[in-house]
Amino acid sequence: MPRRYAFGRADEATHPDSMRATLAELVSTFIFVFAGEGSVLALETGPPASGLVMIALAHALALFAAVAASINVSGGHVNPAVTFAALVGGRISVVRAIYYWIAQILGSIIASLLLRLRPVGFYVTSGVGEGNGLILEIVLTFGLVYVVYATAIDPKRGSLGIMAPLAIGLIVGANILVGGPFDGAAMNPARAFGPSLVGWRWKNHWIYWLGPFLGGGLAAIIYEYMIIPTEPPLHTHHQPLAPEDY
Amino acid sequence: MPRRYAFGRADEATHPDSMRATLAELVSTFIFVFAGEGSVLALETGPPASGLVMIALAHALALFAAVAASINVSGGHVNPAVTFAALVGGRISVVRAIYYWIAQILGSIIASLLLRLRPVGFYVTSGVGEGNGLILEIVLTFGLVYVVYATAIDPKRGSLGIMAPLAIGLIVGANILVGGPFDGAAMNPARAFGPSLVGWRWKNHWIYWLGPFLGGGLAAIIYEYMIIPTEPPLHTHHQPLAPEDY
Amino acid sequence: MPRRYAFGRADEATHPDSMRATLAELVSTFIFVFAGEGSVLALETGPPASGLVMIALAHALALFAAVAASINVSGGHVNPAVTFAALVGGRISVVRAIYYWIAQILGSIIASLLLRLRPVGFYVTSGVGEGNGLILEIVLTFGLVYVVYATAIDPKRGSLGIMAPLAIGLIVGANILVGGPFDGAAMNPARAFGPSLVGWRWKNHWIYWLGPFLGGGLAAIIYEYMIIPTEPPLHTHHQPLAPEDY
Amino acid sequence: MPRRYAFGRADEATHPDSMRATLAELVSTFIFVFAGEGSVLALETGPPASGLVMIALAHALALFAAVAASINVSGGHVNPAVTFAALVGGRISVVRAIYYWIAQILGSIIASLLLRLRPVGFYVTSGVGEGNGLILEIVLTFGLVYVVYATAIDPKRGSLGIMAPLAIGLIVGANILVGGPFDGAAMNPARAFGPSLVGWRWKNHWIYWLGPFLGGGLAAIIYEYMIIPTEPPLHTHHQPLAPEDY
Repeated sequence: MPRRYAFGRADEATHPDSMRATLAELVSTFIFVFAGEGSVLALETGPPASGLVMIALAHALALFAAVAASINVSGGHVNPAVTFAALVGGRISVVRAIYYWIAQILGSIIASLLLRLRPVGFYVTSGVGEGNGLILEIVLTFGLVYVVYATAIDPKRGSLGIMAPLAIGLIVGANILVGGPFDGAAMNPARAFGPSLVGWRWKNHWIYWLGPFLGGGLAAIIYEYMIIPTEPPLHTHHQPLAPEDY
Repeated sequence: MPRRYAFGRADEATHPDSMRATLAELVSTFIFVFAGEGSVLALETGPPASGLVMIALAHALALFAAVAASINVSGGHVNPAVTFAALVGGRISVVRAIYYWIAQILGSIIASLLLRLRPVGFYVTSGVGEGNGLILEIVLTFGLVYVVYATAIDPKRGSLGIMAPLAIGLIVGANILVGGPFDGAAMNPARAFGPSLVGWRWKNHWIYWLGPFLGGGLAAIIYEYMIIPTEPPLHTHHQPLAPEDY
Repeated sequence: MPRRYAFGRADEATHPDSMRATLAELVSTFIFVFAGEGSVLALETGPPASGLVMIALAHALALFAAVAASINVSGGHVNPAVTFAALVGGRISVVRAIYYWIAQILGSIIASLLLRLRPVGFYVTSGVGEGNGLILEIVLTFGLVYVVYATAIDPKRGSLGIMAPLAIGLIVGANILVGGPFDGAAMNPARAFGPSLVGWRWKNHWIYWLGPFLGGGLAAIIYEYMIIPTEPPLHTHHQPLAPEDY
Repeated sequence: MPRRYAFGRADEATHPDSMRATLAELVSTFIFVFAGEGSVLALETGPPASGLVMIALAHALALFAAVAASINVSGGHVNPAVTFAALVGGRISVVRAIYYWIAQILGSIIASLLLRLRPVGFYVTSGVGEGNGLILEIVLTFGLVYVVYATAIDPKRGSLGIMAPLAIGLIVGANILVGGPFDGAAMNPARAFGPSLVGWRWKNHWIYWLGPFLGGGLAAIIYEYMIIPTEPPLHTHHQPLAPEDY
């Protein structure tokens, strides 16, 4: 395990590990720049920043706690699009997916009923257009489910139990700071369904099912088939790979 | 341990594990949607968002640190409703619960005395009504104590020592962003008692005892008797269950 | 290890563990209520909340990263009051403490020089009074150093390496939301010294040395001599104590 | 392993470990004070605090998630300056560095294309001057890469897998609260390149390559050659050093 070297392994330029790592850098930089640059755009065109920060924090902190509270019991999906992605990747059975979907929708309806004053729900801001809203939900949910896959589903994750809930909660918070002013940034059909049912407002509602399922399914396919090695691992240690193990 | 499958175990539709996981998804989605949609409502009806964010952050960050500092010594309750929930679930003795309650109330009184200028305390905002305030405290504390139970008390939690303080601090922060404008979102009788005593203001005070005890006790009963398996575990590994172990 | 019981161990009412746990609940509730109720006071009397949130976040996030970057090399003090507390508790030698103090002051001076436009520094807000500023620094640093002791110095902490930097960064953020409008909430003599030297402003400066040293020393004495057991531990497992181990 | 002592080891004043620890305290205090005092300056001279908090949070939360999602696959660079620093420190091969740079730039371009309305990008605020912008990028990226090195690359980091993504995300958030009003605080050439290419605005662009590479390279040299011990470790335990091991 030499510490300093200039050209790496002989097969580094062509080894599947190099390809996977490069793809992972591409997707992660995409997720980061989309949120960072997108938040600058949202600030310029959107509503007051302090309200947006408040909404994003409420979602991020509550989702972290909700995933943390269920990850060791159910896997911590809390989102039909995540359950769909786990189904696409072959990580969950059809029976269990249907159970989860029913539970997630019920949980959202009960919360909306308790907020009986007037649930607000999701819609595309006037001037944005349904097409753009759909694309936004696809892209934002792609980022969310890619993070879910990398931190909660990839078996390499080892003992990093805190990583998954925190990464999931915080990417949702970041993405709301981008998409909030445009279409609410649901990334979660159950989150959208409860308030729509209780308030009986269905305008644009299909976007919040199709977008997350497309974006989440795409992320599952990319991560499951392009990032996770198909060969059995040679060793089973739980430490993250140190850079000198590249 | 096959990685991809379509229908899961033969008994998946009826196994107690499936029921527990489904219930966990329901409750976690409820907690998440209540905070997320509730914060949108609070923003529309409440005071300036930046002040609310400031109060929520102060509570969340300080509670994380306070629980982290005591979790390995006392279990990190820092809240009479949490101690009550642990008592309801049979996780703590009556003697110790009484000791904790006295200490929590004393800590709150000392803090309120040092803030001698004028502690503000908790009350129901005019126009909201005591009944709604009580329901809000029940629901918010239910979410908090469910998270406490899942991350700090459930023996499956293994070595995830950081999970509990963080989840507890952050769900309190999220819930303040929902309930803050309506009744202050105490979720903690000691937190309400100290300022009330020092400022000698008792209006609505009973809400901040009855609500948290009802919500916390309900969460303890649900988690202790419906989520934690009653059969002895077959193995004792500390890793979170991977999705393929479903 | 019975799971449910009503009265605990026979000696629970008098065992030193019960006393330590009760004291830990008292101090943690004090820290939490002081920050929570104090932030409500600060919001009512202080400057705009969004600026305060910005300052508190900058300190909290940077301090987390700074402690994380040094905890495995130097213990992650980054604060002469923490070094003083470790010295009071007998956890560090005089030689090393002097080295750390010099390094901390140098780091602060270099940062202040690079911010050459005009470092702002710390002072007591007009109308608050030096005595109140001193008390505030004592109380806030007491909370900070108690958290440092519990998460970074107490040998029971086991493998919770992330807990210490996060708890330290976040309690500083929370305390700034309380004390920021009144005296800047330094809790750290080096943090105050650099800007004072570069801007050559020494008004109130003694407060930011005496207060943190008194508060930090008091926290060290309480934690070292009243919370850490003096008897050798009976077992050496690294898991946090489960509630049924009480 | 005596618990309390007054003068430490006989060679404490001259042992390389003492020197490394002292240097680590200096650099960490520098990073903390620069962000803390810098944010006070930025608040006084800059744009509204709430917008700045929103931008900083979006970057911090998304970067945490992006690094968490890739750290076990690629090392979680997500930044050409980090890849450059790993190259300078001899931790990555030239081939892999080139692959990463291409992937990072592609990810940033794709994100900017999807934000097709009008990516904003980075530039030096009028009145600040290119020289000051360059210095700011050097200093801010120095802090970022020092934290990367300490938490993600230093082999002593053991099993603290969550520490690296969190510290990296949060120091970027803190540094944006300092540098955001002056030059945008990119600290990442790929983050700056994508929006510049799509919006075809190249004013000041060289700053965002030269500054991060200089600051990142400097941090790599300091950490790699002055903080990491050159002698082989005597033992391989994964626990952070307890203070009594000093």
